Amino acid sequence: MDSLPLQAISTGAAALVVALILYFRVKSAPEGNPAMARIARFIREGAMAFLTREYKVLAIYAVVVAGLMVWQLGAIAAVAFVAGAFLSLLAGFFGMKSATFANVRTAEAARANGKPAALVLALDGGAVMGLCVAGLGLLGMGVIFAAFRAGEAFHKDFGTIIHAFAVGASSIALFARIGGGIYTKAADVGADIVGKVEANIPEDDPRNPGVIADNVGDNVGDIAGMGADIYESYVAAVVSAMALGLTIPVDKLKPLAPELGDTELRMAAVSLPLLLTTIGLAVSIVGIFITRTLKNMPPAMVLRIALILPPFLVVGAAAVILPMFKISMGAVATLAAGAVGGGVIGLVTDYYTSMGPIQKIAQSSITGPGTNVIRGLAVGLESCAIPLGTLCIVGWISNHFLGLYGIALAAVGMLAGTAIVMTVDAYGPIADNGGGIAEMSGLGKEVRDITDELDAVGNTTAAVGKGFAIGSAVLTVVALFAAFNMEVNHVRHLKGEKELQLILTESNVLMGLLFGAILPCVVGATTMTAVGRAAGAIVEEIRRQFREIPGLLEGKEGAEPQPKVIVDIATAAAIKEMILPGAVAVLAPVILGFGFGADVLAGALAGALAVGATLSLLMANGGGAWDNAKKFIEKGGLEGHKKGSDAHKAAVVGDTVGDPFKDTSGPGISILIKVMSVVSLLIAPLL
Amino acid sequence: MDSLPLQAISTGAAALVVALILYFRVKSAPEGNPAMARIARFIREGAMAFLTREYKVLAIYAVVVAGLMVWQLGAIAAVAFVAGAFLSLLAGFFGMKSATFANVRTAEAARANGKPAALVLALDGGAVMGLCVAGLGLLGMGVIFAAFRAGEAFHKDFGTIIHAFAVGASSIALFARIGGGIYTKAADVGADIVGKVEANIPEDDPRNPGVIADNVGDNVGDIAGMGADIYESYVAAVVSAMALGLTIPVDKLKPLAPELGDTELRMAAVSLPLLLTTIGLAVSIVGIFITRTLKNMPPAMVLRIALILPPFLVVGAAAVILPMFKISMGAVATLAAGAVGGGVIGLVTDYYTSMGPIQKIAQSSITGPGTNVIRGLAVGLESCAIPLGTLCIVGWISNHFLGLYGIALAAVGMLAGTAIVMTVDAYGPIADNGGGIAEMSGLGKEVRDITDELDAVGNTTAAVGKGFAIGSAVLTVVALFAAFNMEVNHVRHLKGEKELQLILTESNVLMGLLFGAILPCVVGATTMTAVGRAAGAIVEEIRRQFREIPGLLEGKEGAEPQPKVIVDIATAAAIKEMILPGAVAVLAPVILGFGFGADVLAGALAGALAVGATLSLLMANGGGAWDNAKKFIEKGGLEGHKKGSDAHKAAVVGDTVGDPFKDTSGPGISILIKVMSVVSLLIAPLL
Repeated sequence: MDSLPLQAISTGAAALVVALILYFRVKSAPEGNPAMARIARFIREGAMAFLTREYKVLAIYAVVVAGLMVWQLGAIAAVAFVAGAFLSLLAGFFGMKSATFANVRTAEAARANGKPAALVLALDGGAVMGLCVAGLGLLGMGVIFAAFRAGEAFHKDFGTIIHAFAVGASSIALFARIGGGIYTKAADVGADIVGKVEANIPEDDPRNPGVIADNVGDNVGDIAGMGADIYESYVAAVVSAMALGLTIPVDKLKPLAPELGDTELRMAAVSLPLLLTTIGLAVSIVGIFITRTLKNMPPAMVLRIALILPPFLVVGAAAVILPMFKISMGAVATLAAGAVGGGVIGLVTDYYTSMGPIQKIAQSSITGPGTNVIRGLAVGLESCAIPLGTLCIVGWISNHFLGLYGIALAAVGMLAGTAIVMTVDAYGPIADNGGGIAEMSGLGKEVRDITDELDAVGNTTAAVGKGFAIGSAVLTVVALFAAFNMEVNHVRHLKGEKELQLILTESNVLMGLLFGAILPCVVGATTMTAVGRAAGAIVEEIRRQFREIPGLLEGKEGAEPQPKVIVDIATAAAIKEMILPGAVAVLAPVILGFGFGADVLAGALAGALAVGATLSLLMANGGGAWDNAKKFIEKGGLEGHKKGSDAHKAAVVGDTVGDPFKDTSGPGISILIKVMSVVSLLIAPLL
Repeated sequence: MDSLPLQAISTGAAALVVALILYFRVKSAPEGNPAMARIARFIREGAMAFLTREYKVLAIYAVVVAGLMVWQLGAIAAVAFVAGAFLSLLAGFFGMKSATFANVRTAEAARANGKPAALVLALDGGAVMGLCVAGLGLLGMGVIFAAFRAGEAFHKDFGTIIHAFAVGASSIALFARIGGGIYTKAADVGADIVGKVEANIPEDDPRNPGVIADNVGDNVGDIAGMGADIYESYVAAVVSAMALGLTIPVDKLKPLAPELGDTELRMAAVSLPLLLTTIGLAVSIVGIFITRTLKNMPPAMVLRIALILPPFLVVGAAAVILPMFKISMGAVATLAAGAVGGGVIGLVTDYYTSMGPIQKIAQSSITGPGTNVIRGLAVGLESCAIPLGTLCIVGWISNHFLGLYGIALAAVGMLAGTAIVMTVDAYGPIADNGGGIAEMSGLGKEVRDITDELDAVGNTTAAVGKGFAIGSAVLTVVALFAAFNMEVNHVRHLKGEKELQLILTESNVLMGLLFGAILPCVVGATTMTAVGRAAGAIVEEIRRQFREIPGLLEGKEGAEPQPKVIVDIATAAAIKEMILPGAVAVLAPVILGFGFGADVLAGALAGALAVGATLSLLMANGGGAWDNAKKFIEKGGLEGHKKGSDAHKAAVVGDTVGDPFKDTSGPGISILIKVMSVVSLLIAPLL
């Protein structure tokens, strides 16, 4: 595997080159009429304004943390941290740039050339993000790998360096996800409350000053936030596997490659995650091009193929390649378990957010919003069962073949298709934005029909993508948790201290478990109220504009809304509100670890994992189901209760509850448990 | 402590005698006019009909389980199980009998003699339940203690016998709580949907055929169900402490009484929980009489004193009595931690369900039901933090003084005032029912004002009582969990097998943790949909009666509703729907333990604990807050938005969601984790 870092770096670079080509392809596509271009410019500028302000805050955070790291962990760790963070910002920046060019061009393509052309444009726009996320991630890890591997061994700080890299990725993801999530839902809810409810004008009506902010929100939340999140999952999964490969007792690694000697075996264990990720990215690049050739098939089919296929291709490729390095078929079985498990979770998510359960939610809307909400919550709770059960089975199989290291490998397998998952995820908001621009610039029903179809497909695939993301997050956290314990013991062993044994019936661990349960609740509560507060501020401003700008509501010539004011309010509110939950997530492990000890911290990680996994699944699936139940009624699925009926209004209530669930709090909690784990892993040697 | 069993039995018997006296006092009070008597008879008959049918199902369950026990654990264990179950049924039966006499007499007392007289009657009615619960519990444990203690040691099966007793208590509580919870909320929601929403007639209107069932529901859910629940907590706390006292290595018990020899020390550790419970019941009996003398104070004050005082009196008494038995002041400190912790949790619950947070929920009702629900969920999530944090501190302090045994003791301390907590808990639905009867029989506004005030106070104290219940449940589960591990090891040690070490980073434990998280979700989802289904059936029947009984809706003379039909439907539905969640709770530990091993089961207990504690706190507090936010608006707390306004309607939606949260799913989940733990403890020797 001597050439592995080179292969990783070159595959990463290739992905970036492809991204660049697609970026220019997107940018060179026609932008449509001046009205469209103007709206698109507003959205782009709003999105970039948010990103710039967010990045300023994050820069301060990064400098402070890097300073602490220089002091406690050395300068190289600080550099790795900054690199992890910087690459995340870079991926978010390019992805959003591309998406905010692609949205308007998708609308124009739908108008001028029809559905297949629009599909390809939206996919290309998303692929830039997907390739940047995976390419930059792989590039970063490849460079670290190349720089700190010396022959048969690693630099003594290699562990700390990759942990710091992961902490950089994770903490940016945390803030970007929470900040973006608050922005997008506050703007959405705010624009809807005044527009749809009070002023009784349709969604995306150009008179509504909040509409631009709503469209900006799709970009900052579902593109930049989601991108940072997936970049983080990708990095964390690889790092957790590398960390375990580095610290797990070597005899426990034996099943991975029984023929190798100890030194070679450890090298193989640390290298394998990088190798698999390299294979995964190569497969994904091919997959993206295959997807483009399927453009004449129904979009729903195209996207499902794009999501489900790559993990299986990776397993196939691994079955051929791994034996060359004397790695056992157990590793392939583990990857297969991860891929199948991810597929099952995706399908279950699909079921809960688009089939029987949403009809039941729609049905219970007939008796009012109360029963709609109860049913949605019940669906959310129920939807946790099979995914968590599947993860238990995947964990059990992986552990059977390769021990805890296998669990980390399963997560790597589940995420092997990250570039394409992210492509499909970013595709959704691009199509959604395209539809919004079509509506605002009055492009007519045929265009809107195309963008609506593309958007609707994106909703379901977004749910499937979230299923993958949460599933891999849970496995990664399990692996990180084990790695944390190994790392603590590794260091204690060197110091000749007593090993840390995490015995579940010891009071410190149990109390930690209960304390850990608090953290997802706090992040959930603060993000949900943050959305409410930020939305309130937006509502006031939209009301003010309707009141004070003469002729705006009547749509008179020359009466222009002031969308930039709303964008500013949303930006300021989201950035202010992201600080508290973000600080909780980053500081909790530090305070618990240094204040109460490694055992309390470990218990807290376990408690946060159990509660966090449950709440984030509940929120993601419940939110998706509410959204689609509303759409089901709008499409006439509920006989005798069409759009505008009482049942539909009840379904809108459920959707309002589901919005912050699925796009703010749920993702926030899911990332919380990852951030806590990587931060714990990083500080482990100091405990 | 030789005379301890005798003291326990005589204190238990004394409580039952007092209960009998109060029962006859209540029964001899005047019943009011014939209309009142008739309605009260309907309610009483409906409640008893439910209890009879439920008991038949539970009898089958008990016979089957007892049979399995004879086969696997011996006949004595089976007898103990049946005794634990039977005493639970008995307490429920007497308590409900008394409550269904007291409700109508409270209304009559309010009419004839005013508020203080009504307060005393409702309290007396509740005290019968409170004294039966604690008296029968103590009596049962005292008898077992007396029968199976031989001099300085215990019968070799003493552990299994008390575990079986606790399993009997727990499983009845589970079914009674879930069945009663489904009944009460289905009837409530069903009656409201047709009555208040569709037919536009007030709550408790005698024309509505569902009103009797609604009032029956208050009794079967909030009296019989709650009684079984609290009886179970009481028994489980004592048994967990005894079990730890019996199996924990004796050197770890040293701090409890450093001067005692090993044999005496173990005897002291097993006896102490019974001693404290005896003191607690004696204090509570006195407390009940003191409370009656305060009848001229504001009811809210009276009830708060009744709830907060007893644990502190127990601590005071313990500080005097325990040194006589050479038991260290560490035990007193532990009790004090439990008492203070319980008080803090109670106050926090009070805050979240009656102060600032409910005003915020009311405020967010102005922008509609969506924002109301979001804010309520956020309040529920936030409300988990301080109680769970407090439990960590209590656990830490108790462990500091006495190790894991101390945690069990803290739970015993928290529950020492059970008789009086249950009195206050049962008081609430009696006052509520009294108000319903006053309304249905047209007693006039002054009477209704008194019953409304008594009812409103009951709502808050119910929330405080639930806080105590969940707090003690969590500590008890922690103790049971530790006892489970000790018991497994105790038996393995005897067999010369390797001890079970629950290492949190082992795959089986981790996978168990994830699997355990599923169980509260399943119970939550099934109970919530069960309420919806049962309510649907009731809605249909009420609609049919309004349609087919001429003149009913118009209130014509001679047009009588058929409440018994509704009562039958609700009874059948609740009993059918309680089976699935009940079976999940009882069977899950058996399947996990025998199918996958003790380590997976232990992990699952920990996962269920973390998720279950969080969800049940979230649901109990969120539900209470929504309810009181609605009442806050009804009382005119929200300027410009009175009863009937859009904001009020939005608050009603939140209350509808909160109803199954706080009265069905939340309590169901809280009891789930206890049942899982005691069942695990019972089967531990077989694993």
